[in-house]
Amino acid sequence: MEKDPALRLRVFDLNCWAIRYLSKQRQERIRLIGDRLCQEGFDLVLLQEIWSERDYSDLKAKLGGCCPFSHYFRSGVIGSGLCVFSKFPILDTLLYQYSLNGYPYMLQHGDWFCGKSVGLVVVRIAEITFNIYVTHLHAEYSREKDAYLPHRVVQAWELAQFICHTAKAADVVLLGGDLNMHPGDVGVRLLRGWTGLHDAFTEAKHFEGCEDGCTLIPNNCFTVKSELQPFPLGIRIDYILYKAVSSFTVKCEELRTTTGTVPGMDIPYSDHEAVMAMLCIQRRGRAAGATIGTAMPALVEVLSEARTEVCMGLLAARQQRYSSGRMAVLAMLLLLLQAVGVLGVLGGLVAGKPFPTLSFSLLAFLALAILLLAAGLHLFHSIEVKMLQGTKEQMEMAMRGLQEQPLHRH
Amino acid sequence: MEKDPALRLRVFDLNCWAIRYLSKQRQERIRLIGDRLCQEGFDLVLLQEIWSERDYSDLKAKLGGCCPFSHYFRSGVIGSGLCVFSKFPILDTLLYQYSLNGYPYMLQHGDWFCGKSVGLVVVRIAEITFNIYVTHLHAEYSREKDAYLPHRVVQAWELAQFICHTAKAADVVLLGGDLNMHPGDVGVRLLRGWTGLHDAFTEAKHFEGCEDGCTLIPNNCFTVKSELQPFPLGIRIDYILYKAVSSFTVKCEELRTTTGTVPGMDIPYSDHEAVMAMLCIQRRGRAAGATIGTAMPALVEVLSEARTEVCMGLLAARQQRYSSGRMAVLAMLLLLLQAVGVLGVLGGLVAGKPFPTLSFSLLAFLALAILLLAAGLHLFHSIEVKMLQGTKEQMEMAMRGLQEQPLHRH
Repeated sequence: MEKDPALRLRVFDLNCWAIRYLSKQRQERIRLIGDRLCQEGFDLVLLQEIWSERDYSDLKAKLGGCCPFSHYFRSGVIGSGLCVFSKFPILDTLLYQYSLNGYPYMLQHGDWFCGKSVGLVVVRIAEITFNIYVTHLHAEYSREKDAYLPHRVVQAWELAQFICHTAKAADVVLLGGDLNMHPGDVGVRLLRGWTGLHDAFTEAKHFEGCEDGCTLIPNNCFTVKSELQPFPLGIRIDYILYKAVSSFTVKCEELRTTTGTVPGMDIPYSDHEAVMAMLCIQRRGRAAGATIGTAMPALVEVLSEARTEVCMGLLAARQQRYSSGRMAVLAMLLLLLQAVGVLGVLGGLVAGKPFPTLSFSLLAFLALAILLLAAGLHLFHSIEVKMLQGTKEQMEMAMRGLQEQPLHRH
Repeated sequence: MEKDPALRLRVFDLNCWAIRYLSKQRQERIRLIGDRLCQEGFDLVLLQEIWSERDYSDLKAKLGGCCPFSHYFRSGVIGSGLCVFSKFPILDTLLYQYSLNGYPYMLQHGDWFCGKSVGLVVVRIAEITFNIYVTHLHAEYSREKDAYLPHRVVQAWELAQFICHTAKAADVVLLGGDLNMHPGDVGVRLLRGWTGLHDAFTEAKHFEGCEDGCTLIPNNCFTVKSELQPFPLGIRIDYILYKAVSSFTVKCEELRTTTGTVPGMDIPYSDHEAVMAMLCIQRRGRAAGATIGTAMPALVEVLSEARTEVCMGLLAARQQRYSSGRMAVLAMLLLLLQAVGVLGVLGGLVAGKPFPTLSFSLLAFLALAILLLAAGLHLFHSIEVKMLQGTKEQMEMAMRGLQEQPLHRH
């Protein structure tokens, strides 16, 4: 039986760090990114942190010739920041917003406002159906004291589930994005184990770029050097992952990253490095057996590890729910006390004017403000507890399922 | 070729109206619902508005014998209210929360706090894979001036998309729930047209229950009679919908609804009537051609109608975003003016004490409160605009897709 000719697909992935008013030399960098994309003519371009619709429109106008099809995913207050450009028509799209994404009161870590999501676009190339996912998970602001780890693990789990549930009719699955996790982190292992996705960097026949495939490097003038201090080479948190169903094979022939500054310029494209893969997709002569992502016992272990992280988050969230509830009750008591005082004065039980009006009303306002704030926090942490609890149960169900019917996956 | 024996599946669907502290005779009704379910022994039970986890646990304990498998979907502040009980093991679950769901400040219409969602459970019965969806869309508080129509249309569209994207490996798709839409409403036509789902009521060989299959009837002592005045028979807003892939057929042999009060009691199970279907699933001798949901020109027309509703919502949301933004700016100006006044007094430019301290500080607090509130509203309506805009674009893409490649659907 003769093999079909191989399909070669060139994929580009970059976290563009294009935050209006905040990111340095944003417009210039967007222009440089557009130039590079036009010049190299990629088949698929997966971008993150394109927060401004104008930047998207500019890129769209520029890429009209080489990637005439595109989609911008909207979500949250600012948007999801995700967009896809494609040389081939986009048949369908879907956006899934993660249920947990940091805290609205952590204004300095703006993640909550971004509505972090995973976007799916369906593309058909040479009669092969591609499900292409682009995502950006919650940032890690401190590796030692990572308060967002449970949220990121929940996101990785939801991402894995979303891919499994939506990719059942796809021939090839592609995921590109900034996962904000190192290759060995529990979230990446969970994602790869549950979905069976391969890492283009480890599979690539030929690699060219930053050492160890790092995408956040000290050499880049926009990275925060202090954060990278424990990692002299940098860290790898941007990925291109892929898999094919049994009647196809996908191989990564070449993987490249940018290496700091743009050739011939003195600035880089972004604070992240771009990941560029050349994938080779081939129809198999005959369907081989189903590929299994990770061996079952290992997958159960990863799930159990992820569940532990979620449980830690659950403990913290319950504690915060309790504290904010207590604060609300205290503020309410203070208000009640003041009301009793006022009634006492009005009822003539207390003679004269026992407290100065101004400070009394200021105190009442303060109590009211604290009550509202604490009630809001209590509400928010109640949602958090609910979602963590739900994820914990789902993971337990998945573990039971794996142990009872180990052959039902994939 | 001999046909496989038919699989008969008994499905129960009910909006249980079980809101703690608010719903009348809640615990008694939950007990009655549990009794009925135990007695009749359904294969699948899809419930909505089970807001309290305790009610879920009570039902779970009671149904342990006949429906030992179950899942409770958590989301939002209060929860999604959705749960599923099954006679067969649940292999997998996924929850998708709708991106728009009313307004947080419409406290009297609590929908926003419920995190309205669609839940999916995957079940395998007799080697047939079932994707079972349960959902509850935003309520319609006034049919004449339905401010939530654009949100409900967005939800119907997201529901349709979620089903299409996740059901690709399913043999049979089942959807049960309270859609809060009449059978002819644009959202129902969009959902049915896009997914190809059949309505158990119209397809049923045998029907028994309320006239026209109504599920919100004047006869029920918990319904609000004034809302049902234009519809003397009641309205049908709770559905069981289904479809099968080409190698299976699904038929609805019997459909029943409850009819007000519980037999032998003086109260109904809920303010809604339950929908009970007996479905007959059969493997076909040979795969027939793919079933097409709705003829393409009709589907394009429905999409265009839905898009119009979304555009109306977009206009309103933009107007509200503008008003709240303007209010925030005015409050900010007032605060600035006061600050200038204070600086004037402090700088000695104004002699004496030109305004009473108490009313001055009260005014400042008021301005600050309005500023915060208006800024919050502005943020919220910005999200709304973003999501409506995104849906509008998706619908336009879908229409273009249908017109260009009419045979690519289903």
